Amino acid sequence: MAVGLEAVESLIAVSGVRVAAVEAGVRYTDRKDVVVFEICPDAAVAATFTRNVFCAAPVQICRDHLSRATPRYLVINTGNANAGTGEKGLQDAQEICQALADAAGVDVENVLPFSTGVIGEYLPVERIVTGVKNALVQLQDDAWVVAATGIMTTDTIPKGYSDQLQINGAEITITGIAKGAGMIRPNMATLLAYIATDANIEKDLFQQCLEEAVSLSFNRITVDSDTSTNDSCVAIATKKVDMPMMSDAHSDEYQIFRLAMIAHCQKLAQSLIRDGEGATKFITIEVNGGANVNECEDVAFTVAHSPLVKTAFFASDPNWGRILAAIGRSNVPGLNIEKVSVYLDDVCIVENGERSASYTEERGQAVMDQSEITVRIDLGRGDESATVWTSDLSHDYVTINAEYRS
Amino acid sequence: MAVGLEAVESLIAVSGVRVAAVEAGVRYTDRKDVVVFEICPDAAVAATFTRNVFCAAPVQICRDHLSRATPRYLVINTGNANAGTGEKGLQDAQEICQALADAAGVDVENVLPFSTGVIGEYLPVERIVTGVKNALVQLQDDAWVVAATGIMTTDTIPKGYSDQLQINGAEITITGIAKGAGMIRPNMATLLAYIATDANIEKDLFQQCLEEAVSLSFNRITVDSDTSTNDSCVAIATKKVDMPMMSDAHSDEYQIFRLAMIAHCQKLAQSLIRDGEGATKFITIEVNGGANVNECEDVAFTVAHSPLVKTAFFASDPNWGRILAAIGRSNVPGLNIEKVSVYLDDVCIVENGERSASYTEERGQAVMDQSEITVRIDLGRGDESATVWTSDLSHDYVTINAEYRS
Repeated sequence: MAVGLEAVESLIAVSGVRVAAVEAGVRYTDRKDVVVFEICPDAAVAATFTRNVFCAAPVQICRDHLSRATPRYLVINTGNANAGTGEKGLQDAQEICQALADAAGVDVENVLPFSTGVIGEYLPVERIVTGVKNALVQLQDDAWVVAATGIMTTDTIPKGYSDQLQINGAEITITGIAKGAGMIRPNMATLLAYIATDANIEKDLFQQCLEEAVSLSFNRITVDSDTSTNDSCVAIATKKVDMPMMSDAHSDEYQIFRLAMIAHCQKLAQSLIRDGEGATKFITIEVNGGANVNECEDVAFTVAHSPLVKTAFFASDPNWGRILAAIGRSNVPGLNIEKVSVYLDDVCIVENGERSASYTEERGQAVMDQSEITVRIDLGRGDESATVWTSDLSHDYVTINAEYRS
Repeated sequence: MAVGLEAVESLIAVSGVRVAAVEAGVRYTDRKDVVVFEICPDAAVAATFTRNVFCAAPVQICRDHLSRATPRYLVINTGNANAGTGEKGLQDAQEICQALADAAGVDVENVLPFSTGVIGEYLPVERIVTGVKNALVQLQDDAWVVAATGIMTTDTIPKGYSDQLQINGAEITITGIAKGAGMIRPNMATLLAYIATDANIEKDLFQQCLEEAVSLSFNRITVDSDTSTNDSCVAIATKKVDMPMMSDAHSDEYQIFRLAMIAHCQKLAQSLIRDGEGATKFITIEVNGGANVNECEDVAFTVAHSPLVKTAFFASDPNWGRILAAIGRSNVPGLNIEKVSVYLDDVCIVENGERSASYTEERGQAVMDQSEITVRIDLGRGDESATVWTSDLSHDYVTINAEYRS
């Protein structure tokens, strides 16, 4: 199902992090649906969360616990988002954190809870607590692939990447997993991404690094324009690699690490689109020539959200008029149509605001028949750019969301 | 197909307006695809057009001609939008206007052109000119239903209404037709609506009246969030009724007429949603308790545009969490979730930001099983309101837009 993407089969362990995934029967049986991460003491932990004001109970607790202590454990359940559940939802999430804390011998503030699934139902707390206790005795260094499977909901395949880089001779590993296939238009982070590195980096700089990487990756993707109530992205730096601590944002070491983190997050974010609900195409929308980044993002997202553009991609129909109409309704003040150009891969379809003289339906069709397509838009009014990744709108998207109570 | 709506079978003629629809073979055969309206001299003509900056050639010419003269003829073709066609598109539209003007003995500025259909292709000018000449000799007072059919594209039924009202003993008729089933998120007017009245009203006041009516009707509907390049709404007041000319916005006479125009435009706008592409439900989204109208509109449109909300309606699934998530991601600064309530018809589903104690799945399901549903949202922060009408997202929407080159 996923476009140009296979299920992840192996991931590199990160010293200082152990994981486990178990079947707790949260919503379905025969499915790993509770995942626990154990983090070594003294790690730097960075996190970003949804900006949806209806944020879920676990997101509220995460923010509170992060302000009080350094996380030692993450506990994630699928099948139930624990959102729209009010005071009881907060108590339920806290009860699960407390049970884990008691069993592991840490404080409740050292535990961060995460939930994903249907909104508005109460968690089956007892079953999850039982699952958490089972998970604690199964923690392993190299269970990342199982964890990637354990956080899936409508995802069709587990998704994750490992990258390695050298900084002054020290070998650093970055391993990350992510899930999410619908309600994907993240605004701070996407629904559950966990990244760990053994790099030695100062906590505030690591948070800044994650925020920048997220803004250029998870915040640049959209399946269906719906921002989830539970989006969370956590990054862990275990500092296990023998290297001087990175604490200067201008150092060469940090710049190398930062670029690796951005590239890593972009791969993870793109993997969510490749496995987006009903996706048959992977579409890159690159907007250049803007007066500022915001207007480039606005044009790219307007095109990416257009149901007419998305169904045309599903049909492999080079109906570029729909792209033009979407650009025209985006909120770019004073946009001069006569300076706008649009390309499908290398085929120029619109030049100076009208159909390019060199365009033929055959050339457009050849690009549209591909499963991976880049739409390149030049606004002709500046030097700024933004790139957004999205999927098409297919019958399977409707089927999945009409039949699945997500 | 249309939700709670039959094809219009009769409409009341408006003295001073004659219409005709003919087969010109613009894109398909055996289909009336060119419509001509003739307007008596001295009528007041008001108009609103799309705000999409990629506006079509005919929209540009309409604006120009309206600034120079009073319209005597309207010429409309379906099958081809004449948008994204540059200088040649303008020449083509002008050539059609000139041919009509020559045949009818008026100036080219007295003719307004309208096109709807596929974007980015050149008009078959000769076939349309032949059609226009045929139409001119077939003009009739009472051909409004045929005209309603002649402007259809993916619409499944012709749509129109006639209303009659009394002002100081004078009987006034308002008859209107409209088309448009996809690329419907009008921003000034929807893709082709024509309204005529025999009322006697001063031109500037009539324009003000139309703008207010459009803002509360065509600008409050959405099928798929895509604003067309060709949206146009024209209203004609022939002044044939024997009554003093209305020219005072504060007069009782104008207030009666104004409310009738708003109600008329709302019925026409709603008929587009009832016949929206793939629509199986007619959804009213009413937002109350806002600090201002803009934020109420913003919340209503965010819910109305959410693919997850729309697929839940298609599935008759009372998945109210998706409504909550959409409210939460709308741009209302400082929205306090704990004051938000949500109702499906009379069933309270969310109270103080969480699931209502009185809510049961059975009660929610009973409402969702209906084909017409009102979602009522109270923001609990003021006295302002806004209502938006929309349809669901069905397999047929995807089929229509993946298979139809619109």
